[in-house]
Amino acid sequence: MAATTKTDHALERLVFFSDAVFAIAITLLVIEIHAPHLPHGAAEVAYWQALAQLWPNIVGYVISFGVIGLFWMGHHRAFALSARYSSKVLGWNLGLLGTIGFMPFATAFLSSNMNAQAPSVFYCLTMLLAAFFNWRVVRVATGPDMVEPGASADAIAYVRARSFSVLLGSATAVVLGFVLPQMAQAGLVTIPLWLKLLRGGAARKEARRT
Amino acid sequence: MAATTKTDHALERLVFFSDAVFAIAITLLVIEIHAPHLPHGAAEVAYWQALAQLWPNIVGYVISFGVIGLFWMGHHRAFALSARYSSKVLGWNLGLLGTIGFMPFATAFLSSNMNAQAPSVFYCLTMLLAAFFNWRVVRVATGPDMVEPGASADAIAYVRARSFSVLLGSATAVVLGFVLPQMAQAGLVTIPLWLKLLRGGAARKEARRT
Amino acid sequence: MAATTKTDHALERLVFFSDAVFAIAITLLVIEIHAPHLPHGAAEVAYWQALAQLWPNIVGYVISFGVIGLFWMGHHRAFALSARYSSKVLGWNLGLLGTIGFMPFATAFLSSNMNAQAPSVFYCLTMLLAAFFNWRVVRVATGPDMVEPGASADAIAYVRARSFSVLLGSATAVVLGFVLPQMAQAGLVTIPLWLKLLRGGAARKEARRT
Amino acid sequence: MAATTKTDHALERLVFFSDAVFAIAITLLVIEIHAPHLPHGAAEVAYWQALAQLWPNIVGYVISFGVIGLFWMGHHRAFALSARYSSKVLGWNLGLLGTIGFMPFATAFLSSNMNAQAPSVFYCLTMLLAAFFNWRVVRVATGPDMVEPGASADAIAYVRARSFSVLLGSATAVVLGFVLPQMAQAGLVTIPLWLKLLRGGAARKEARRT
Repeated sequence: MAATTKTDHALERLVFFSDAVFAIAITLLVIEIHAPHLPHGAAEVAYWQALAQLWPNIVGYVISFGVIGLFWMGHHRAFALSARYSSKVLGWNLGLLGTIGFMPFATAFLSSNMNAQAPSVFYCLTMLLAAFFNWRVVRVATGPDMVEPGASADAIAYVRARSFSVLLGSATAVVLGFVLPQMAQAGLVTIPLWLKLLRGGAARKEARRT
Repeated sequence: MAATTKTDHALERLVFFSDAVFAIAITLLVIEIHAPHLPHGAAEVAYWQALAQLWPNIVGYVISFGVIGLFWMGHHRAFALSARYSSKVLGWNLGLLGTIGFMPFATAFLSSNMNAQAPSVFYCLTMLLAAFFNWRVVRVATGPDMVEPGASADAIAYVRARSFSVLLGSATAVVLGFVLPQMAQAGLVTIPLWLKLLRGGAARKEARRT
Repeated sequence: MAATTKTDHALERLVFFSDAVFAIAITLLVIEIHAPHLPHGAAEVAYWQALAQLWPNIVGYVISFGVIGLFWMGHHRAFALSARYSSKVLGWNLGLLGTIGFMPFATAFLSSNMNAQAPSVFYCLTMLLAAFFNWRVVRVATGPDMVEPGASADAIAYVRARSFSVLLGSATAVVLGFVLPQMAQAGLVTIPLWLKLLRGGAARKEARRT
Repeated sequence: MAATTKTDHALERLVFFSDAVFAIAITLLVIEIHAPHLPHGAAEVAYWQALAQLWPNIVGYVISFGVIGLFWMGHHRAFALSARYSSKVLGWNLGLLGTIGFMPFATAFLSSNMNAQAPSVFYCLTMLLAAFFNWRVVRVATGPDMVEPGASADAIAYVRARSFSVLLGSATAVVLGFVLPQMAQAGLVTIPLWLKLLRGGAARKEARRT
């Protein structure tokens, strides 16, 4: 087996391990929603009411599923541009996975205490930490140590801008959490705006240069 | 690495991530069955009675294992016809995985409240949502953006008809849930019938055309 | 992509999905051992006593880890002889995975009720069911529909005899469970004996034939 | 399919299974941190206090995530030097995975009983057991039965010295656990020292020989 194949294999194993952690964290979210058990012979409406009381948990499940899915997609996109393995990415990646693995706790804390500010801010801070690690991972995965030689500069710039806009969107969510705790996660909606802004700035810079 | 290889790799990673979520959701089902703990020196028959009381949970485990297995097999069959990755499938696939990941909750709610209508209808609605996302995923995975050029038209038609018959079977289960809650999941038994109907209609249309 | 490659890919995905379920079931075993929480300032010896009381759970963990590991190794060995995918294996394999996924419950029931006969017999019956599905999976995976053309007849015979001896060993454990419940799992120790017996019989038959 | 390809496939499946167990164990750590649920209308500061009370659990999560990550990296590094599969590694590897899978329990026991010596010593003993199995796995994976023919002697020596220094670091943690229970895990910080010592000794021996 050639040395390059071995290196590719190390990259593959890292990606695989990360995928597994993302998949487990995303699926563990459901464990925090406890099925209500009603006494035998309860009225049908009581069951629907019991479900309605779980509404915050179900909303929390959907939001966190989306958030973890978002980070997985970013990871996916960045490593699609990598061809070589570098141990420099290991620490940042482990930090990212550790924060993603912590999301089920942050979600449960949020869902069990809707209407309060602290759990919402805490959730957004967790997201911000994940976004920070993600941004570092993307930098290294698309940097000189790991990037595929033939990867287009534009694809790299896009992936990097995207990871930075996730960081800005998470920071927006934290700030929003202090003002409008119930709408904090809506801060993520600003991600495309940040991305447009960053890409626009880059395009202008590019235009000036040429 | 050629561009096509990279694209294949993205497809592989998507399939892998989906498989992991299916596998985790299917295995987490067991967590909702709590082992009874009897006082030291209890009569042997008391243990078997304790197990018998868990009958709904064990039945729920078997049904949901079958249901998730069914969706996994459909996913498996559809992506066996795909050769290219397209980001168009991501959203639908995440929706499917999110609904599959939610099945352990729906199962626990059903098992803890047998004989009631609401949990049974809720379970079937979850199944219907999964069937809807599954149908969309299958359409995209076997559509122009992703399908393998050499895939036989008949194989594609079969996989699509199958995914639509799962949707119809789940809808039948929902309707049945309102009438005969305890037999609702039996609605899935109609899937082969719907498939035969759909395939028969397609064959007749085909025959008329030629 | 050639048709054979596609078929190999379907086989790979099946193996992967099975591996994931084995890995998750084996790791979920630990969830059933609840960490004792002692009051602040408790004597050091009280902590060790708390651990000692968990002895049945830890023993159960080790046994079930071994049992699931054993089944995984058998699966591993059988599919190493397969080269083609066949849908005939799907049902049996799903049955096997469903039973393996059920092991954490059987283990918890056993560990919480040591010294009783019923949980021990129930555990062994679960093992017997897994052994039955496993035997069917091995038959199909090494049968005409899936086997690699170049696989040695001896390797096939060995893998099949091994899967049958696991079935006999599990049946021995069930029988033992009725007589000596605390030693039931020790019935698995008879697996190598059954294997020797089966292999010896096959060798004698072979010798007579030539 | 040639025999070597088959062997590689067996190695790949073993590595995959191990990765999955590592990933699940590392992600299950979060399950042991239970989200506090405060009464509606509680003061904001009460939420932060509730989080602060979970401090030991969060620290435990971070430490164990690091420890499992460390073992995963060692496994990764060793198998990057293997090219052939050997059944000799199976038993040791299963022992390693079983101990890693047990870490969530040891972590929960430690986090729930900070300030006590026994849980800290128990945690370090678990780590020591993992380090022992890991050392054996690394010996076999880089030994004559499995090693890639072209692997550099220095890379092998490094990986082996590293696995032995993890063993020594864990032993240091156990000893430290008896003296300074709250700092026991800090014993792992000695790993690089042991590694330097071992590598220095090897270099001197090498120098003397030439």
